[in-house]
Amino acid sequence: MTAYTATVTVRLKRGVLDPEAETTRKALERLGFDLEELRAADRFEIDLDADSEEEAGERAEKMAERLLANPTIHDYSVEVEGR
Amino acid sequence: MTAYTATVTVRLKRGVLDPEAETTRKALERLGFDLEELRAADRFEIDLDADSEEEAGERAEKMAERLLANPTIHDYSVEVEGR
Repeated sequence: MTAYTATVTVRLKRGVLDPEAETTRKALERLGFDLEELRAADRFEIDLDADSEEEAGERAEKMAERLLANPTIHDYSVEVEGR
Repeated sequence: MTAYTATVTVRLKRGVLDPEAETTRKALERLGFDLEELRAADRFEIDLDADSEEEAGERAEKMAERLLANPTIHDYSVEVEGR
């Protein structure tokens, strides 16, 4: 068993409204910042032990499907690295 | 001016309690997943135009300092790439 950290990034799908990100963008503009667009995402860093990088990635993917992401509105991506 | 995307990742500092991440970890364990630890972070992807990658990074860093992160409880990191 090797120690890995799997990072799951959960984003809203294109076209799904994100009022919180929109509010953040406007607040930055009010502070004088110049930006085109702002997208917010959730990032989960999961420490887990697995036999291989592939196995760690598959388990993190299942966690995303079962709990971390809502497939109706979210896309997610998984990255794995040794810890 | 070149189009960049600056990614700001905002994490709780070590030692700051994160009850939401703890609840997520426990929920994953109840679903039968085996994991050591789970950390949650906020990720902001900011599209902006700047004269250089350095300038884009500095502006994103200022946004983090002014609004996106709370220096008392958060650490943040900034990555910039062309868009």
